[in-house]
Amino acid sequence: MVVDLSVCCSSPMNTLAVDFGGRRIKLGLVVDGVVLAQAVIPSHADQHLRTQLGTVAGALTQLCQQRGIEPGACAGVAFAYPSIIDVARARILDHFDKFGDVASMDLRAWAKEQLGLPLAIDNDARLALAGEWRHGAGAGCQNLVMVTLGTGLGVSAVIEGRLLRGVHGQAGILGGHITANYNGHACVCGSVGCAEAEASSWALDRIAKEEPLFAGSTLSREPALDFAAVFRLASHGDACSVALRDHCLRVWSALAVSLIHAYDPESLIFGCGVMGSAETILPVIRGYVDRHAHTPWGKVRIAGSALGDRAALLGCEWLLQEQFSKEDDFEQI
Amino acid sequence: MVVDLSVCCSSPMNTLAVDFGGRRIKLGLVVDGVVLAQAVIPSHADQHLRTQLGTVAGALTQLCQQRGIEPGACAGVAFAYPSIIDVARARILDHFDKFGDVASMDLRAWAKEQLGLPLAIDNDARLALAGEWRHGAGAGCQNLVMVTLGTGLGVSAVIEGRLLRGVHGQAGILGGHITANYNGHACVCGSVGCAEAEASSWALDRIAKEEPLFAGSTLSREPALDFAAVFRLASHGDACSVALRDHCLRVWSALAVSLIHAYDPESLIFGCGVMGSAETILPVIRGYVDRHAHTPWGKVRIAGSALGDRAALLGCEWLLQEQFSKEDDFEQI
Repeated sequence: MVVDLSVCCSSPMNTLAVDFGGRRIKLGLVVDGVVLAQAVIPSHADQHLRTQLGTVAGALTQLCQQRGIEPGACAGVAFAYPSIIDVARARILDHFDKFGDVASMDLRAWAKEQLGLPLAIDNDARLALAGEWRHGAGAGCQNLVMVTLGTGLGVSAVIEGRLLRGVHGQAGILGGHITANYNGHACVCGSVGCAEAEASSWALDRIAKEEPLFAGSTLSREPALDFAAVFRLASHGDACSVALRDHCLRVWSALAVSLIHAYDPESLIFGCGVMGSAETILPVIRGYVDRHAHTPWGKVRIAGSALGDRAALLGCEWLLQEQFSKEDDFEQI
Repeated sequence: MVVDLSVCCSSPMNTLAVDFGGRRIKLGLVVDGVVLAQAVIPSHADQHLRTQLGTVAGALTQLCQQRGIEPGACAGVAFAYPSIIDVARARILDHFDKFGDVASMDLRAWAKEQLGLPLAIDNDARLALAGEWRHGAGAGCQNLVMVTLGTGLGVSAVIEGRLLRGVHGQAGILGGHITANYNGHACVCGSVGCAEAEASSWALDRIAKEEPLFAGSTLSREPALDFAAVFRLASHGDACSVALRDHCLRVWSALAVSLIHAYDPESLIFGCGVMGSAETILPVIRGYVDRHAHTPWGKVRIAGSALGDRAALLGCEWLLQEQFSKEDDFEQI
């Protein structure tokens, strides 16, 4: 298919956007920076991706029907996926124990067969930043870092107006695996003492149980040990929760300084959706960065995500436009 | 002055290169990747730069005389300077207690008055990498990180064929100020637990005195407490020196993984000049990186500097060519 780029770039394109989270897959029909329709389905990341994609195709078709359009009338489908991605070949390079069959999946062939559409894919944290950069908390800024406090720590960077990817697609997105403590804990990535191993949702169970105050604490009797509980109980004075909260805030603050020193951003955006505690988290990180980041030019702006769950969906639209603009590299159907 | 770029780029240009170190200023007359003549003078970094630049101009003129050319026949003068640099305006933004008057110096005016030449300046670690990239251990590679183990930890990065600078000139060069231990020591940069604060020459005195084995050790009786002594005595079995050596190797290894995760390089170059112990340092870092860096694409190559002290001098020539090629931005005399 030959794409008329003048049409793509000057008139709105419908994009089918899919954001694969650890527990939920978010789907959206996106046009010109607006999510016209959206849906959420469970991830079932322990199953094969091929199985789950059948459900995804059905949900995307339903979204189109809601808006009275055929999937084939969309410009394409774009995936935001939590892994290292070969964007040029639309391949997932790393499975991190999710969807065991991802490496063997030919996603472009799947999209062509199931939806009759071209497909693009990139890392989910990178596309969340692309969304915020184009339509959210980073609009108008060309030097940005974003940290998403989710199951792990999603990081990405825009430097001098270019979304950082690197030769193997790893640059920026492994920011959560910058060391916070060289004598720290083993991380899922294979390294030691990564910020993500010291303070993230997947590590919280271990971190809590290492805290001497945990046994006998109110937190230990919670039905679910998550950051929402930690922040809620800390605000009520539970000493164990206060200690855990302050530990994690310190690690995230140190990570913020590391990222500022690594990438030289004007703004640092935090996505705090999982714990819904931006009003607690951001002032602490802002204070630490103001005291400790070496920025003789001025102060880095610390902001919360403006788009929340929509960030990566809007980033999907940006990705599709970017890939269309690189027509030679983008293997069209 | 209008520069004929076709002449600049097709025929060799003489570059007067100056590399400002903490203790020594290295000067070179560089042509086409070769240092034709060089000299070293003491830094006297506690004095004003304006005073020291008189000595620099004299030494550069002598270098030219050695080769039988007039300074005015050179293409320009380029400085490699240990600070954050505004390359476009040729200004030094941060003095780190060295040469107290640097912020007020108009270096271009100085070079025009003293040598009749245009001037370019960039960070010393960045130009050491530029030299290795063009003529040394990084030749032919477009994705590189370099760490120089000197008084501090000089870091810089080339990503997808672009030398990383960032909007405020800080990107890459503050890599030594990525956190190694969020509960660590105060750093000269204002942060806490930077790799440089945990393991570098300027921190060695404090690190040694914190080591319980130091009192009574052979190391404590050395006339100079430096890494050369630590590595030498460690190889002879001094327990304190072994502990200090292994501590620093661990911090540098963790930093190597952080930098790989941040910048996605194919090669990581270590400049170990100060301690002359590359054969001890590199295998340890290589082993740690192989075990702990998350690089599903393969293994990062760990190499020593090929150019040593000449790296930044050759980087100066690259900088001048780069600035000439951006003729509109480069304010000629």
